[in-house]
Amino acid sequence: MRPSTRSERRGARPSDGGVVSLMLRIDVQPDGRVGPGKIALLERIAEHGSISAAARTMHMSYRHAWELVDELARCFGRPVVIAHMGGAGGGGTRLTPLGRDLVTEYRAIERKARHAARQHLMRLQSSRATRS
Amino acid sequence: MRPSTRSERRGARPSDGGVVSLMLRIDVQPDGRVGPGKIALLERIAEHGSISAAARTMHMSYRHAWELVDELARCFGRPVVIAHMGGAGGGGTRLTPLGRDLVTEYRAIERKARHAARQHLMRLQSSRATRS
Repeated sequence: MRPSTRSERRGARPSDGGVVSLMLRIDVQPDGRVGPGKIALLERIAEHGSISAAARTMHMSYRHAWELVDELARCFGRPVVIAHMGGAGGGGTRLTPLGRDLVTEYRAIERKARHAARQHLMRLQSSRATRS
Repeated sequence: MRPSTRSERRGARPSDGGVVSLMLRIDVQPDGRVGPGKIALLERIAEHGSISAAARTMHMSYRHAWELVDELARCFGRPVVIAHMGGAGGGGTRLTPLGRDLVTEYRAIERKARHAARQHLMRLQSSRATRS
């Protein structure tokens, strides 16, 4: 889709250590997609309290980060982040309950799916290793 | 990646019936990807005994189908299809054991992952449905 996706994913989620690994995406009709890039962005927004700081750590532009966040909001019909004012840092951005749920559910699915896939991935990995 | 991917997937594997569904991709280092489009192509080659017939049912060019098959072979270091001669139809193409294993393991992972993800996807689906 866009050139930065793969490096973001690598940055956001290091390989499981194997040569063969599983990537998950949640498709929301009619055309929403929630994959590792958007989830990592939400996690970094939660961590840094700012879209621009999160974008920087993922080597993407603020504009692109905002577009991803906006895609999620359109897809679910509600915002996934919210601006808040005040405090020592002069305000910032945090996840809404929906934003937090998305991260939680995605990571839970990923954990269970990888566990369920483990033996199958190992078999594929050895198919690859035993090539002549 | 390429414009035809989504329609191939839709054609190859109808939606689970839900608004929210799971898509899986197996990533093979350094840059191989095995997703629903390539798996559906292998299944159709097995079904039709021909790359060109399989390509036609997926509305893709022979050349594109061949490139996908070739990507898989490079990724695993061995061919996933093999030409065979003779018989009433004058020969054709079938899957190698590796090609068959890829389909089997991918579909097994998909089945287990979807089962494991079910309750989480239902929660996300209701997050979306209850939007105000």
